[in-house]
Amino acid sequence: MLNAALSALAFATAASTDFTSSSSSSCQHRGKSCTAQQRAQALLSQMTWEEKIGQMGGVRRILSLDSTINPNYETIKKTQNGQMGFGPMFNWAKDIMPLVNSLRLEQVNSSRLHIPYITVTDSINGLLISGGTVFPSNLAMSSSFNLPLFKGVVEAIREEQLSIGVKWVLSPPLDVAREPRYGRIGELFGEDGYLIGEFGRVYVETMEEKDENGYTKVACTIKHFVYGDARGGVNTACQYGGINHLFNDQLRPYIHVLETTSPASLMVSYATVDLVPMSANEYMLQDILRDKLGFKGLIMSDAFSIPNLYTQSKTATSLEDAALQALNAGLQMELAPGNPPAFPTLISSINDTRVAKLIDAAVLKMLEIKYASGVFEQPLANLNVMNKTLRAAAHLDLARQMARESIVLLKNDGLLPYPLKGTGKLAIIGPFGDILNPGSYAAVNVSNARYGSSLYRSAVSAFGVDRVTFTQGCDIVDTTNATNSIPDAVTAAKEAGFAVLMLGSLSDAPEDMTMAPKRTDGEFFAHADLGFPGLQQELLDAILDTGVPTVLILTGGQPFVLQQSTLSRVNAIFHSFLGGEFTGDALIELLTGRVNPSAKLTISMPQHTGAIPAMYDYLPSDDQGGWASLGYQSAWQFPNLTRTVPMPFGFGLSYTTFDISTPIATVQEKNKAVVVATTVRNTGTRKGKEVVQVYFRPATTRGLEFPVKRLVRFEKVELAPGESRDVNFNIPYKDLGVWINAKPTTFMGLYNIWVGSSSREEDLRMVNVTLV
Amino acid sequence: MLNAALSALAFATAASTDFTSSSSSSCQHRGKSCTAQQRAQALLSQMTWEEKIGQMGGVRRILSLDSTINPNYETIKKTQNGQMGFGPMFNWAKDIMPLVNSLRLEQVNSSRLHIPYITVTDSINGLLISGGTVFPSNLAMSSSFNLPLFKGVVEAIREEQLSIGVKWVLSPPLDVAREPRYGRIGELFGEDGYLIGEFGRVYVETMEEKDENGYTKVACTIKHFVYGDARGGVNTACQYGGINHLFNDQLRPYIHVLETTSPASLMVSYATVDLVPMSANEYMLQDILRDKLGFKGLIMSDAFSIPNLYTQSKTATSLEDAALQALNAGLQMELAPGNPPAFPTLISSINDTRVAKLIDAAVLKMLEIKYASGVFEQPLANLNVMNKTLRAAAHLDLARQMARESIVLLKNDGLLPYPLKGTGKLAIIGPFGDILNPGSYAAVNVSNARYGSSLYRSAVSAFGVDRVTFTQGCDIVDTTNATNSIPDAVTAAKEAGFAVLMLGSLSDAPEDMTMAPKRTDGEFFAHADLGFPGLQQELLDAILDTGVPTVLILTGGQPFVLQQSTLSRVNAIFHSFLGGEFTGDALIELLTGRVNPSAKLTISMPQHTGAIPAMYDYLPSDDQGGWASLGYQSAWQFPNLTRTVPMPFGFGLSYTTFDISTPIATVQEKNKAVVVATTVRNTGTRKGKEVVQVYFRPATTRGLEFPVKRLVRFEKVELAPGESRDVNFNIPYKDLGVWINAKPTTFMGLYNIWVGSSSREEDLRMVNVTLV
Repeated sequence: MLNAALSALAFATAASTDFTSSSSSSCQHRGKSCTAQQRAQALLSQMTWEEKIGQMGGVRRILSLDSTINPNYETIKKTQNGQMGFGPMFNWAKDIMPLVNSLRLEQVNSSRLHIPYITVTDSINGLLISGGTVFPSNLAMSSSFNLPLFKGVVEAIREEQLSIGVKWVLSPPLDVAREPRYGRIGELFGEDGYLIGEFGRVYVETMEEKDENGYTKVACTIKHFVYGDARGGVNTACQYGGINHLFNDQLRPYIHVLETTSPASLMVSYATVDLVPMSANEYMLQDILRDKLGFKGLIMSDAFSIPNLYTQSKTATSLEDAALQALNAGLQMELAPGNPPAFPTLISSINDTRVAKLIDAAVLKMLEIKYASGVFEQPLANLNVMNKTLRAAAHLDLARQMARESIVLLKNDGLLPYPLKGTGKLAIIGPFGDILNPGSYAAVNVSNARYGSSLYRSAVSAFGVDRVTFTQGCDIVDTTNATNSIPDAVTAAKEAGFAVLMLGSLSDAPEDMTMAPKRTDGEFFAHADLGFPGLQQELLDAILDTGVPTVLILTGGQPFVLQQSTLSRVNAIFHSFLGGEFTGDALIELLTGRVNPSAKLTISMPQHTGAIPAMYDYLPSDDQGGWASLGYQSAWQFPNLTRTVPMPFGFGLSYTTFDISTPIATVQEKNKAVVVATTVRNTGTRKGKEVVQVYFRPATTRGLEFPVKRLVRFEKVELAPGESRDVNFNIPYKDLGVWINAKPTTFMGLYNIWVGSSSREEDLRMVNVTLV
Repeated sequence: MLNAALSALAFATAASTDFTSSSSSSCQHRGKSCTAQQRAQALLSQMTWEEKIGQMGGVRRILSLDSTINPNYETIKKTQNGQMGFGPMFNWAKDIMPLVNSLRLEQVNSSRLHIPYITVTDSINGLLISGGTVFPSNLAMSSSFNLPLFKGVVEAIREEQLSIGVKWVLSPPLDVAREPRYGRIGELFGEDGYLIGEFGRVYVETMEEKDENGYTKVACTIKHFVYGDARGGVNTACQYGGINHLFNDQLRPYIHVLETTSPASLMVSYATVDLVPMSANEYMLQDILRDKLGFKGLIMSDAFSIPNLYTQSKTATSLEDAALQALNAGLQMELAPGNPPAFPTLISSINDTRVAKLIDAAVLKMLEIKYASGVFEQPLANLNVMNKTLRAAAHLDLARQMARESIVLLKNDGLLPYPLKGTGKLAIIGPFGDILNPGSYAAVNVSNARYGSSLYRSAVSAFGVDRVTFTQGCDIVDTTNATNSIPDAVTAAKEAGFAVLMLGSLSDAPEDMTMAPKRTDGEFFAHADLGFPGLQQELLDAILDTGVPTVLILTGGQPFVLQQSTLSRVNAIFHSFLGGEFTGDALIELLTGRVNPSAKLTISMPQHTGAIPAMYDYLPSDDQGGWASLGYQSAWQFPNLTRTVPMPFGFGLSYTTFDISTPIATVQEKNKAVVVATTVRNTGTRKGKEVVQVYFRPATTRGLEFPVKRLVRFEKVELAPGESRDVNFNIPYKDLGVWINAKPTTFMGLYNIWVGSSSREEDLRMVNVTLV
């Protein structure tokens, strides 16, 4: 079958083959002189109800684990044939693309109206199948605070996706990561609504660029509408509603992205919002998303989320009822990777005028996306282009550069940088010392633990094999098995005289069954405890007990609670999150000072698993204050904890020092904007990058309590020792506003404006300004 | 001063003295032939704006710590003179009442229209000043599941309050305790909306009974509108809104209490709801509380909550602005125990028609409450009645009985009951072994650690001094000081051969400065960790390491997380909450089997500080399920935890066993009710009480996700060994309903009905019934 397909497709490796449908519609024949909408309308008018409903689903797993066609393929595609996904991450792009192309071609040829699939995949670290460049996860990339660099990464991902025929990605996620127990934080851009919105904007702008023919390069899906404050940290758990809470917290990134871009689609969350499942939440999808936020694109389910109405939420009496509720609420496409799908049951309701109208509207959106993205003209991947594009040198460089700027230095008592030259030895210790930890949506080429350059392997490359040892010390999660040997690690640390521990939680491809039992992070997981799984804390304590100089490297798509005895004894700490395939190399560059750390936390590190939420932009009344005369700094007992944390959003260290001057804020009444001017100077002895951060708070906010402060601008600047630069920020009044009952409002009057290197009070300088 | 007041008030010790105002209003003269409202209206028409605004505040602390008059008294009463509170709990009723009466009398005589104070106090465990009976806290009392007994307690509290001239209490709290970190859970009736509503209903019905003259005995205040899901567990922190979430969770007790009673007043919470501070939340107070819930009574602030708009939430520009916002939103009375109050500033706005109208409406409500409660006729306490009433034998008996039924047996491997007769020795161990832990609103007579019968002193009474030792072992919170001597406790346990440890968190009067530094529970506290403060866990582990049979008694107004090694090794566990002054006696009776335990948890015990919320009525989608093939039962990693907890709401053991038969459920279509019938049998060898609990779930709930199950009825029955009883429950359809967008809705169709002894699946038997 594979060979037959390959030969049948030989012609398809040449570019520009036109597969435009030969249907009778005049507008379709006219090609580019018609708009995508006109062409979609013309095609729609010829379709049967079965064909229409077919477009509302797809074959999410076209392949099996062994690069053969999914045995259910023919059955599924009879009723679900709008889009396709590749299937398991174990498959390698170069192995499967000829077969995938054959199926794409077959679909064009065999469907009555020659409607091609559009290929839709997740895209977090890059490709969802093996063989592409594996970039850092979103939480890591947001820590770079480097939007131009991020734009480069998105371009690279876009080109790799395009090269395998992906025209539509299930990204960017715009969830606000305020619940540190949530297992999918690694996929998100952190806890701040403005920062998420900016990364989201750049992502959509870049992915959805037009090509030379005017086609959308890759359509985007903003998601998961709406989520972030997951009850208990659980992926499908409820999210409380409240129109002000939604607009001022969870919806902020959506508002920003929809004001600045036009994402092709949106995915609903698994959550209930105000007890109503999002897959049947007409209020949220019509009144809020369509009417208030003006979203024009296609609304899709999350995987299984329509059947969940029946099987999990029990708000529907059958699969068919679930489908009707979802359709009526506004869902237009179903993601159904394995279970019986719901939307094909709609066929029995097409005599219902409302249903028929909604189906037409949904299919029109789908066809518009297909026409707009050029998939009618080019439904296949060009394998020559793919071979040149995947893992292109420029992409690998971007992944390296992003890894360097994504890893946050959280503590350094002066031990670092560690000299690259010399004879000093390093003991690499810990269960993450010789594996990669890329994230649960990263392709298996790196979620295979033996792939790529681990910390240990990178260290060997940098220092030579004689100067580096690796001792696992303990398993990631198992507290009992024979892989735990803390005494060996203690010996290694003492012998080397310098220990580098890499500890954390594992998030890798769910299909990598060799590592799956060791996972505690990523989708399907919530962190009931924010410390280290297994015996990792015991391992750390044992190394710290030796007194050997020790660097702790954290890994995982989550913040960690670090014990006081760790914080006081360890000499240096990095957090590497899920850093992509060059994490090991980047860590060695950062440890040795070849690269100066420049990343900042985008999620605050809680002080205790029970002292959450820990986000920096809490409300004044969230901090009751403590019984001061008894030495209690806040209400949080025991232990006695402050509401602010020592390592909050925006915090991160460098090997050099910067001075950010007290800002000057000027109101431009005519432009309705505030201009904030500051000068940043590298006051140390090394070249480095600093993230200049601007926060604000209206002095009084009548009608709505406002957080203690909020980020409104940031800029990353690189400075040589002694060099200084003026940095100006133009902030329209509206960016200082709030939403009161879904209406944007900017308060006039006094504002506090802070500028500095983190959200910590001691890292900020304040100026007041009065909006008039 | 005190002596002068005493002699001036000698006449006031006789009952029925009529202090009716001699003002000119005809209706006032006509006395009882006019309604309270008519009399209030008549009086209002004669008042100046200053007098009106004076009624909207009061002197919350009429006394100082040393039983003298508050030095600020005269200043405060010039502008705030509607109501009064006694002040510090350190004062004893019998010492201060003559002085208090003198001030009450003086107010009647000196005010131009002879308007008396009304005395308003907190009332959680009973009186807020010393000298009364100290009952268990609400969390303990709710664990009795015994509404008739609770009614008796409320009657006793009412008579004690009345005897000192209290005509208005700041109870009952109706907050839903779903956030186990919240420090005030001890004041609440647990996590279930129906149970809270029933305790609230009985409380209001009983307190507000009419006396022989038709006067309301004691006016009630339902509070804190609305709260329970405190962000981070903090008292003043935000509460998310969402109309469905509010109506189906937080508002449920309010809906029930307002359908069945007419509480005189309501106190707002400190929270923001949907980011709007409750003291200025017009939507919640007018649209929801007044219009949807039909509340007719007076709306008051919480202490400081109006100034907080300016000083904390920063939603007001000044105290005056805060007062105007609060008034406009619906607040009608201010509680201002110490700070500059806000409402007196309203005097500058009385030319504003709306302000004037709102002030009139507020003062009318206040005067109505005063007339309805008879305070015009009897503004003073009758000291003879007081002497007979406080700590009357019947009240002490009720406090004892409630303590017995409030303490939950959570584990018993057969060690208990412990024989009262014999020569066996007991080692009482732990920092709570010889003190009381009554709650932060309990009077100082028991919050004085040396007052009453502690566990140790009760044990000595029961077993004799030769059979009992007490060893503190460790301090409550301090990990360093000399009071820690775990080895002494180990020795004591070994010598006795039987250990009873009493461990937990301290919640006592905030003014007991000898114990205050040891507090971690009650108002002003949130539990970042749900384990034991100080070295208590170390003490427990050391005792368990000895292998000596051990009983663990928990104390504190909170659930505790118990470590697996504790659960597996300890022989028996009780939770005594904040059990009132007879906790020690009751514990000995329960330990020895003189009383058979019959209490049930009303708040679920979480398995980990990070595995919250733990309430039994979570949503199906709150439990994503885990990766079954890897052995993960739920999303909560690490540790690997189930969503349901082993000790949930409704769970509690007995020394006998009961069988509750599979229920028969019959639909009475005509009455629109379901009748559930079961038979409960004592299958053991001891007399005991069982709480028969009825839970339900509609099979499908279109439009709204419904919890996995919900309590709808309960009844506590006492049975001799072998005895059985039929128990029937009549459940109107409406009690099986939900609220969708603020409209009550009962789904027709299939329901699951469970009957059993707890909310645990293994303790329930199910039947299906179809509503038509």
